[in-house]
Amino acid sequence: MGESFSELAALYRNTLLQDIIPFWERHSVDWENGGYFTCLDAEGEVYDTDKFTWLQARQVWTFAMLYNRWEKRDGWLRIAKHGADFVAECGTDADGNWYFALDRFGRPLVQPYNIFSDCFAAMAFSQYAVASGDERAVEIARRSYDNVLRRRTNPKGQWNKVYPGTRPLKTLAVPMILANLTLEMEWLLGREHLDEVLDETVGEVMTDFLDQDRLLMFENVTPAGEHVDCFEGRLLNPGHGIEAMWFMMDVARRRGDRALIERAVDVVLSTLDFAWDEAYGGICYFMDADGRPPLQLEWDQKLWWVHLEAMVALAMGHALTGRKECIEWYEKVHAYAWPRFSDPDHGEWYGYLNRRGEVLLPLKGGKWKGCFHVPRAMSMCARLFEGMAASEEENRA
Amino acid sequence: MGESFSELAALYRNTLLQDIIPFWERHSVDWENGGYFTCLDAEGEVYDTDKFTWLQARQVWTFAMLYNRWEKRDGWLRIAKHGADFVAECGTDADGNWYFALDRFGRPLVQPYNIFSDCFAAMAFSQYAVASGDERAVEIARRSYDNVLRRRTNPKGQWNKVYPGTRPLKTLAVPMILANLTLEMEWLLGREHLDEVLDETVGEVMTDFLDQDRLLMFENVTPAGEHVDCFEGRLLNPGHGIEAMWFMMDVARRRGDRALIERAVDVVLSTLDFAWDEAYGGICYFMDADGRPPLQLEWDQKLWWVHLEAMVALAMGHALTGRKECIEWYEKVHAYAWPRFSDPDHGEWYGYLNRRGEVLLPLKGGKWKGCFHVPRAMSMCARLFEGMAASEEENRA
Repeated sequence: MGESFSELAALYRNTLLQDIIPFWERHSVDWENGGYFTCLDAEGEVYDTDKFTWLQARQVWTFAMLYNRWEKRDGWLRIAKHGADFVAECGTDADGNWYFALDRFGRPLVQPYNIFSDCFAAMAFSQYAVASGDERAVEIARRSYDNVLRRRTNPKGQWNKVYPGTRPLKTLAVPMILANLTLEMEWLLGREHLDEVLDETVGEVMTDFLDQDRLLMFENVTPAGEHVDCFEGRLLNPGHGIEAMWFMMDVARRRGDRALIERAVDVVLSTLDFAWDEAYGGICYFMDADGRPPLQLEWDQKLWWVHLEAMVALAMGHALTGRKECIEWYEKVHAYAWPRFSDPDHGEWYGYLNRRGEVLLPLKGGKWKGCFHVPRAMSMCARLFEGMAASEEENRA
Repeated sequence: MGESFSELAALYRNTLLQDIIPFWERHSVDWENGGYFTCLDAEGEVYDTDKFTWLQARQVWTFAMLYNRWEKRDGWLRIAKHGADFVAECGTDADGNWYFALDRFGRPLVQPYNIFSDCFAAMAFSQYAVASGDERAVEIARRSYDNVLRRRTNPKGQWNKVYPGTRPLKTLAVPMILANLTLEMEWLLGREHLDEVLDETVGEVMTDFLDQDRLLMFENVTPAGEHVDCFEGRLLNPGHGIEAMWFMMDVARRRGDRALIERAVDVVLSTLDFAWDEAYGGICYFMDADGRPPLQLEWDQKLWWVHLEAMVALAMGHALTGRKECIEWYEKVHAYAWPRFSDPDHGEWYGYLNRRGEVLLPLKGGKWKGCFHVPRAMSMCARLFEGMAASEEENRA
């Protein structure tokens, strides 16, 4: 590849500040009705006006994060407030549960069946509370966090279609996101609570969901952490597993847990070995651990967030351990992802490529892709490579 | 293409009786625990043992249909009974609602959230009742049919995630399947009821769901039959629309409604014009009516049932109207589908090809593909081409 760490830092910083964020500032804010449009085509034109809570909350988080971590720009705080006000006004039912989708005017379209709406709302309002000092934001963040804790054993509630008892399974997403969310909200939660939740979620991820022999993260296991030979039980979502591992590194770094950092790096590397598409390059979206046909027809597609999370995990792994395999894999993923996903002509990244790496859907945002994975990864990679460049400098001096 | 109608009839008949049916007889029957395995790999090996009610019922229907329409083979009746007994024993909750999925032993895995489980159960037990004369089968067929009528206005019941009132939509699948089911059960339902349901469902399909200008079937419209500019409201499922049109022709044929037959043929042809993939051939799985990016990541894939239903619709359209476009399109779809989906080496058809027509999943059966679309289409095409060959013969004499 040849770029130095400081060149990589500059690439991520410049892309974040001069390409990605201006794209969303320019195209996504619905100044008329509140909130954000996220269904944006290749040029940034709005092609659908529905508002999905996940993406509304994630965009609030992103603009508040920029304000908190990059620069105190009023324009960023104003955009964060614009989305926060909209969802605070229309986003929940009378009991404070977050609807899954709203129409452009904020009227509810889809019931609060999804616990991750509450997760992302908690993340958003916590970050926004730091940026704004708004007391109501603190309250909403706390209440949404409590929703997550309350719902975690039965995330879909009345909308759960699984017949109770026959084949109990738990899903990786819950402890994984809870670990990340709890760190995000560290400033709001007591130290004791933080330690308790992190002990529990890290244990669950690294013991129950991690296959100790194959070093692969499974999406679904029994409550006791055993594999089940069924579609859900054999399912791997490599991008998800890799993202979970940088959440683990992030926890481990704060706690000074070297063993956990090394273990998480091992899992990232073995996941990439398993999920890299030798025929066409890129990381597969879904796989069956035993090589049987997966249910997901989109299994062989190459998704933006999978590759961005992998680059974050590899940069973080290298920053924390200095392991050579991390930077070798980083270079391989970088060389695949940047030329195929990024669109310097119109801004932002494409989201969905087919197996061959050709654009499958010519969109920059949709129901699931918003202003989140790209800017978060750009921001983190910029900081990580800045750090690595500084250490290199120091060592040289 | 060059094959004569009688050669086509022979192709379908021979493939049905010497390839497709033996494949399922050999590989799918679970003689130990009852019911059928449907997750079969390219060679017919079982790769998952869960039992999905849709596919259990559809296979009962297929073997009973073979017995009723092709030949009174005891082996076929025995296989139909084997599945019918299994689902009659384990398939429903205490109120007679059909679970969506069972494990290999018949224990419920997924709640009865899906009205089409009841539809396919009604079809299966109606056909099996004709084959076996079993009074209990008649009862189950009636009860399942009543479930469908009762649930049709809120098909997902408590599992419905749509917030009431904001954007009411109804879905094509319900009137479409009800028209087909009611014809299937003609012998069990009174003439008056039959006419009433057919008037209503045909009206709904051809007025509310059919865009009168574009001659395309929409998957979702308002209760009054209007379009809504949202993902669901713009969605086309061309295979579904085409299948609905042969259901309409089937109704119209029995009622002597020439205008409806011509109209249905028009819609088949305009759907094919719209959904044919000019770049790689084949019929797209999902499309956005306005050319915006669809939600379905698998939108550009080529599915077995879409192409089979198109061949049925075109053969039927030609048999009923003699229109030249039908046979021209039939030849185009045939030339695309037969070499790519069929697998004479191991039997049956592949289910899922990528946009380029390459095998995406090397399976012959799974959660959604069982012993149904292939044998039903083969059986119907064999009969239709036999009929066309006979008329040709007559005209020649």
